[in-house]
Amino acid sequence: MKRTLGVCYYPEHWPETQWAEDAARMADIGLTWVRVGEFAWSRMEPEPGRMEWDWLDRAIGTLGAAGLKVVLGTPTATPPRWMLARHPDMLAVDVHGRTRGFGSRRHYCFSHDGYNAESARIVTLLAERYGRSPHVAAWQTDNEYACHDTVLSYSDAARRAFRDWLAQRYQSPEALNRAWGNVFWSMDYASFDEIDLPNLTVTEANPAHWMDFRRFSSDQVARFNRVQTDIIRRHSDAPIAHNYMGRITDFDHFAVGADLDIASWDAYPLGFLSDRLEAPAEHKRRFARQGDPDFQAFHHDLYRAVGRGRWWIMEQQPGPVNWAPHNPDPLPGMARLWAWEAFAHGAEAVCYFRWRQAPFAQEQMHAGLLRPDSAPAPAFHEAAQVAGELAGMDDVEPAAAPVALVFDYASAWAWATQPQGRDFDYFRLVFHLYKGLRRLGLNIDIIRPDTADLSPWRMVLAPGTATLSKPFLAALETYKGVSLIGPRSNSKTETLAIPVPLPPNLPGLACTVARVESLPPDLPVPLTGGGAFTFWREKCEAADVAETTADGWPALIGTGGMRYLAGWPDDAALDRMLSDLCGRAGIPVEPLPEGLRRRDTATTRFWFNYNPEPVTFAGRTLPAAGVLWEPLEP
Amino acid sequence: MKRTLGVCYYPEHWPETQWAEDAARMADIGLTWVRVGEFAWSRMEPEPGRMEWDWLDRAIGTLGAAGLKVVLGTPTATPPRWMLARHPDMLAVDVHGRTRGFGSRRHYCFSHDGYNAESARIVTLLAERYGRSPHVAAWQTDNEYACHDTVLSYSDAARRAFRDWLAQRYQSPEALNRAWGNVFWSMDYASFDEIDLPNLTVTEANPAHWMDFRRFSSDQVARFNRVQTDIIRRHSDAPIAHNYMGRITDFDHFAVGADLDIASWDAYPLGFLSDRLEAPAEHKRRFARQGDPDFQAFHHDLYRAVGRGRWWIMEQQPGPVNWAPHNPDPLPGMARLWAWEAFAHGAEAVCYFRWRQAPFAQEQMHAGLLRPDSAPAPAFHEAAQVAGELAGMDDVEPAAAPVALVFDYASAWAWATQPQGRDFDYFRLVFHLYKGLRRLGLNIDIIRPDTADLSPWRMVLAPGTATLSKPFLAALETYKGVSLIGPRSNSKTETLAIPVPLPPNLPGLACTVARVESLPPDLPVPLTGGGAFTFWREKCEAADVAETTADGWPALIGTGGMRYLAGWPDDAALDRMLSDLCGRAGIPVEPLPEGLRRRDTATTRFWFNYNPEPVTFAGRTLPAAGVLWEPLEP
Amino acid sequence: MKRTLGVCYYPEHWPETQWAEDAARMADIGLTWVRVGEFAWSRMEPEPGRMEWDWLDRAIGTLGAAGLKVVLGTPTATPPRWMLARHPDMLAVDVHGRTRGFGSRRHYCFSHDGYNAESARIVTLLAERYGRSPHVAAWQTDNEYACHDTVLSYSDAARRAFRDWLAQRYQSPEALNRAWGNVFWSMDYASFDEIDLPNLTVTEANPAHWMDFRRFSSDQVARFNRVQTDIIRRHSDAPIAHNYMGRITDFDHFAVGADLDIASWDAYPLGFLSDRLEAPAEHKRRFARQGDPDFQAFHHDLYRAVGRGRWWIMEQQPGPVNWAPHNPDPLPGMARLWAWEAFAHGAEAVCYFRWRQAPFAQEQMHAGLLRPDSAPAPAFHEAAQVAGELAGMDDVEPAAAPVALVFDYASAWAWATQPQGRDFDYFRLVFHLYKGLRRLGLNIDIIRPDTADLSPWRMVLAPGTATLSKPFLAALETYKGVSLIGPRSNSKTETLAIPVPLPPNLPGLACTVARVESLPPDLPVPLTGGGAFTFWREKCEAADVAETTADGWPALIGTGGMRYLAGWPDDAALDRMLSDLCGRAGIPVEPLPEGLRRRDTATTRFWFNYNPEPVTFAGRTLPAAGVLWEPLEP
Ligand SMILES: [Zn+2]
Ligand SMILES: [Zn+2]
Ligand SMILES: [Zn+2]
Repeated sequence: MKRTLGVCYYPEHWPETQWAEDAARMADIGLTWVRVGEFAWSRMEPEPGRMEWDWLDRAIGTLGAAGLKVVLGTPTATPPRWMLARHPDMLAVDVHGRTRGFGSRRHYCFSHDGYNAESARIVTLLAERYGRSPHVAAWQTDNEYACHDTVLSYSDAARRAFRDWLAQRYQSPEALNRAWGNVFWSMDYASFDEIDLPNLTVTEANPAHWMDFRRFSSDQVARFNRVQTDIIRRHSDAPIAHNYMGRITDFDHFAVGADLDIASWDAYPLGFLSDRLEAPAEHKRRFARQGDPDFQAFHHDLYRAVGRGRWWIMEQQPGPVNWAPHNPDPLPGMARLWAWEAFAHGAEAVCYFRWRQAPFAQEQMHAGLLRPDSAPAPAFHEAAQVAGELAGMDDVEPAAAPVALVFDYASAWAWATQPQGRDFDYFRLVFHLYKGLRRLGLNIDIIRPDTADLSPWRMVLAPGTATLSKPFLAALETYKGVSLIGPRSNSKTETLAIPVPLPPNLPGLACTVARVESLPPDLPVPLTGGGAFTFWREKCEAADVAETTADGWPALIGTGGMRYLAGWPDDAALDRMLSDLCGRAGIPVEPLPEGLRRRDTATTRFWFNYNPEPVTFAGRTLPAAGVLWEPLEP
Repeated sequence: MKRTLGVCYYPEHWPETQWAEDAARMADIGLTWVRVGEFAWSRMEPEPGRMEWDWLDRAIGTLGAAGLKVVLGTPTATPPRWMLARHPDMLAVDVHGRTRGFGSRRHYCFSHDGYNAESARIVTLLAERYGRSPHVAAWQTDNEYACHDTVLSYSDAARRAFRDWLAQRYQSPEALNRAWGNVFWSMDYASFDEIDLPNLTVTEANPAHWMDFRRFSSDQVARFNRVQTDIIRRHSDAPIAHNYMGRITDFDHFAVGADLDIASWDAYPLGFLSDRLEAPAEHKRRFARQGDPDFQAFHHDLYRAVGRGRWWIMEQQPGPVNWAPHNPDPLPGMARLWAWEAFAHGAEAVCYFRWRQAPFAQEQMHAGLLRPDSAPAPAFHEAAQVAGELAGMDDVEPAAAPVALVFDYASAWAWATQPQGRDFDYFRLVFHLYKGLRRLGLNIDIIRPDTADLSPWRMVLAPGTATLSKPFLAALETYKGVSLIGPRSNSKTETLAIPVPLPPNLPGLACTVARVESLPPDLPVPLTGGGAFTFWREKCEAADVAETTADGWPALIGTGGMRYLAGWPDDAALDRMLSDLCGRAGIPVEPLPEGLRRRDTATTRFWFNYNPEPVTFAGRTLPAAGVLWEPLEP
Repeated sequence: MKRTLGVCYYPEHWPETQWAEDAARMADIGLTWVRVGEFAWSRMEPEPGRMEWDWLDRAIGTLGAAGLKVVLGTPTATPPRWMLARHPDMLAVDVHGRTRGFGSRRHYCFSHDGYNAESARIVTLLAERYGRSPHVAAWQTDNEYACHDTVLSYSDAARRAFRDWLAQRYQSPEALNRAWGNVFWSMDYASFDEIDLPNLTVTEANPAHWMDFRRFSSDQVARFNRVQTDIIRRHSDAPIAHNYMGRITDFDHFAVGADLDIASWDAYPLGFLSDRLEAPAEHKRRFARQGDPDFQAFHHDLYRAVGRGRWWIMEQQPGPVNWAPHNPDPLPGMARLWAWEAFAHGAEAVCYFRWRQAPFAQEQMHAGLLRPDSAPAPAFHEAAQVAGELAGMDDVEPAAAPVALVFDYASAWAWATQPQGRDFDYFRLVFHLYKGLRRLGLNIDIIRPDTADLSPWRMVLAPGTATLSKPFLAALETYKGVSLIGPRSNSKTETLAIPVPLPPNLPGLACTVARVESLPPDLPVPLTGGGAFTFWREKCEAADVAETTADGWPALIGTGGMRYLAGWPDDAALDRMLSDLCGRAGIPVEPLPEGLRRRDTATTRFWFNYNPEPVTFAGRTLPAAGVLWEPLEP
């Protein structure tokens, strides 16, 4: 497969006289893709029903004439102001009950039927017009579902749709009452129409209520997206993508991904480090201009799974962004490193966001490949360098990964609903284990929670998976490799109750979680083997104990292939355990120095130096922000 | 008096086939009491007017047949969903103006007449049916009044009732304007119907407005409760209790207690340490699995006063809870220690919450004596141990305490309304002095603010009492013991104005508070005798000064029996002052090491080790979580 | 000019029998001014249309008879309760959409036409009655515009007025769409009536939308004030003031000031230190009882500019206040020091707030010159001392300042709208530079952003001025002195877009800001000359570089008279740069020890010791809170 570069472009922001020169410069530095259109509804349809396609025809034509391929976005993330006159109740409502108004973007409730119809209407018009365009080589649906906390809406439309969804799922109020345990505080319902949304209750609502509301809300996103993909497929053979955002877990990306051809994500390493990563201040300081060394890789591996092998970066940070608490300038070389790292993880394309920095509106402080005055910004040259390097490289062959790590959106909802301890967050836990694997130099596959065949991997991890799926449990039963399950895995039913018999109920493992405790960060539970559990530990009754805590409880249960981990290990404990388990699984490891990471394709070993200074390791020296590749021994 | 154990049980949560075995196991480990019913309204009355008593008849019968005594709770904390169709406006409204919806518990406004009538109706039905049951040996009204911030409601019902309450209290708007000082910012009212609730004003509302709203809101709780106790007494001779929550000051517990036979409270030592205690991080870390060494004792002494000698623990933490920021597992032995400490302070009964951990709904992560799978949890065995130990003990005789400490809910409202410095909190101040007394090994009585006879005690403390009551002031005037008043005591009128002549206006003490200052924590005012004032200090004009600050102001005023304390002493200053005053009062003290506490009954000295390691003191060694008792010299 | 003292007095708060004695004591200690009336609307007009002037006639008469001059306040900050019956929709609405209710003060929306008419009505009545009173020697409009966040209102009245304002400004929706860049996210409007207020959007609204809403809101304040000044001038020759609050930037003080004769401000040094100053904890601790050594001076210099030379302190803190997080007692001597410092900066009058501490309502914990029992509080004696000292002093002659510092309210709005980094605040930046100048012992003039003649000063600073005005840019072009512009100066258009060509576009300076970055506090950018940039730095293309960062970018651009500063300097860098620039400008400097400050009038050098201990410097020793003056060499 050929690796390609691209860029996001907004012809509607610039005088038409500038388009041809822009297109020529894009082609000149070796870009292949140009994404357009995803926020331009008010220019496609300035008044209800009055379509203006000419400008977009000409824009796509100009780009195509320069040899560029177009990714055409549906503009449904930005319904124009006139839409509100037609559908005054289409706006989402926030958890405090406030209507979320017009004036930015994503101002719609996924459950609003009228807006769903408008979305279908504009997508139909767009697909009819451009579905056979020779220049439109891919599609994007909407933009960054869930961004700005837009999945959970507490509107009347959502309430009505939730009641219908519950009626479908439970068929009778009695069944729902039983499933939720509504007897608990006299919360029984006599009719689905009595059920409100779970916000604004006096104290916490029933966690089953929240869990179903989260499932429902995720389903509404998938439903909304599927309408668009169905329409586009009727008019176009080009592949369809959506651009997911980093560390968003409010809807099931696998469910949406099932309707896509390509998964893509928007990679803003510095913004994410600043605004959505738990890390010590020193870590944040050290990597402020490079990003966390594993955050991008995690998402690369995640979206490779979501896209069933096909994935892109649809928006790549090229310089400072405008939306994080602090917005430093990337270290010179990072715009190149980030792209190469994506390619090493199997990306088909990396598109920088955006071509030229817009001097107006919300993102005027967001850098582009060009400055507002059209002069090249630093990433312009780095993109050109990557394009040049790509030209000289062979096509990619994907590499097998020895380790698989389960990622499950429903578990994120479960623990967001019921963390039990302030520090327990699902993404944080999975990412913590991912980092441990990366520190050992491993290729990792992230896998769906219902994966039914584990044979491709020598080791499988499923930390914090609230409910292990039937296919996964069945696969575990016959699995020959090493598996590490826990903490907190399989500890809930799908309606967020505790199963009896008690967790983890793993096939062939005599282990019962008798008690759990959440712990403040300053109250670690030391392990006899070194390191400690932090934040969370479980007291298990178990037959076969591989390791214990200093206070005498099983810490790692099972001495064969299947292991249950009874707590949240700190780095020291994690590194030790993972090294040991890799040894048993026959996976060679190479512990890496801080900030240095590696990733193999089938033929090539890539090295990435996230440190702000050079690093020397095993005879190689990489400069700050350096990338190195070397052929793998065959 | 015989000491007893009990448990909270929810037959409606479990198959009826399990009830008899549950009852047998309760009896088997020596439990006496079972609390039932307090959240079961939807099962007692599934539809308006359709009563289902059979299951409850059988549940009570089964428990009674096993020799257990039932505490029957009125279910008014959890009105069923159908109630909202009858009374759509019964919900409380929060301080931001948001209606607090159905879906958890305590979803009612105390001022709603319709709901008051429904409450009277269900309690009447319950009392009629079970008032003469041989097994119902006690009652509980509602559940944890005020929990989840439910006393102050900003609903229309509350607004109307508040206006009526004000009209009763002031008779004319002119009188109210004068009392509140409404001339201040042209806030005068021409009619009671012009008066709104004090939330959502542009800047702070008149503190008198807040103070009266808090008084009114407290009265509404007492009124609501009194309706229930009046009904129950018409049908039953069994004593009536309510279960108060820890560190709740939003309503006057003495006022509600006046209508009860027994005060009880719900003791969650680890949850309270984690979520409602000001303490240094190291203190919280050290006692994370044991609870604060004085927090329980304080409430024991408080509810002994509220119950006029008769008090219980209605809910005792048996393991991790589900609602604090972090929820550790108690140290082995603590479920025993906590029960014994309650008995040492005079509890008649200690009931663990709950029998079996429910695997569903909001409290599924709250431990019980049994696990969800009915296997014993650790506290099951500790409860059995306590029962066994109780069996071998003599009955309790209460001990006299040498020291009395005033606790006054109106002062909590005064300083919540007008803290003047961020760190000034009434409970915090009183508890701070309580801890100082406990460190000296003393028995303490907490007393009402209108106590008229102080002769039972050698020393009396009234810190931060905003308005000293007439009876208390009269008693002080002839008091022969040592009294310590202040800081901030008697500094406000009942409508939260500053009295002129200026405070503290103590009988026989020449002292005028000329100025006060609130201080950041890092700005202590050193005392010449050692230690310092923190958070708060007063500059007094005084004739008779026992001790001064390093900057030359009186710190402790009075050299006879009555003393005025002109600031918030730190631990060092407090220990020194209290030791000195105890010496003058003829009270022997025994300074205790950290985490070790003692409490005497008439015949026995109890020792409690709250430390996570053994402690040796004066020849005794107690293990971690250890309890020791020894006969008192007669 | 003669310097005078005064006090704020509320005759309506006290029995009439007390007025004469109060007046006599005021006169006795040498006060000149008494401010009255500004919160007394409910006593002037107890019912709509029923005026009660008698009491105010007598109060003014009593004060006048004692030789005092009256400042009469319009009572429009406190409309009575009956006003709401006439204008139910006059209340402001907060950013969350909640109506801000009656019960404190400032409960009106500046855009409400009905309330504007009521304001005109009461001011007309007041001006007619007292416009020729021999005792009313000055006026105050309203009270502390903007206090309690009252400029930005999200009411229906504001929405309507904003649409009108936009229609006036842009004439067509197309022009507005272009100016705001509404194409960005399909935010185009087809009509002004489609435009809502910018709160409660899904993510941030267009910064241009916010910027215009802030401009509009500021205009509404000026409009409201101008109605009052126009009316008063028709009936009175006495000068008109308004009392501004500290660190308020929500409206343009210069615009309001243009309609006043005198600018005044309310100086609460300890409250401001506690609640509105960014400073290290140790700084706040050290100056907790004295206030920041520069905060008052900054406002003195600001209001001297706003008042075009005529300015007062209308409210001077006399002791602890009631509204800050902590409220310590001022160090003895500070009430004198603060007054003298104001006089040294050119104040005509300093009025203490308030005469007697009110024992009731919101400010009962706010000290006065008298205690609630009429005994003198410490500031009573300090005020008397100042009065005595003033009697012996010559009249003031203002001194020329060598340095001018631009202060621009629109820049505060720009950076509040778009800080780009959490720590970027306009006031903070300007005040940071002001402090650097003060540490060098300089007299400083604060100047308007449209100052057209810079020749009076040897050095001019314009940090963070978002848009440099045409007159200022023209003045810069011919300026012979040293100018220091930046960081972030001239980086925005008036509608908050980035200008192209890129900033700073300074006449005669080859400099382009190619990139900016906001930085966390722990990521400084060291400078080769010592010190560092913190929070903010810019990467510039520049011909003429005076100094660079350690990573090789221009830090200070220009080697002639005009300099551009490419970051936010820390104290070390700032002190070094300012010393150097002063040297080039021929301004002698004298670096001062911590907490010691100086200010010259034309004839006298004043020294102020803000330290809590004595300081010795260049042969002078000042006690804690000490003031020293010495003749300047002619
Ligand atoms: Zn994006
Ligand atoms: Zn409870
Ligand atoms: Zn004021």
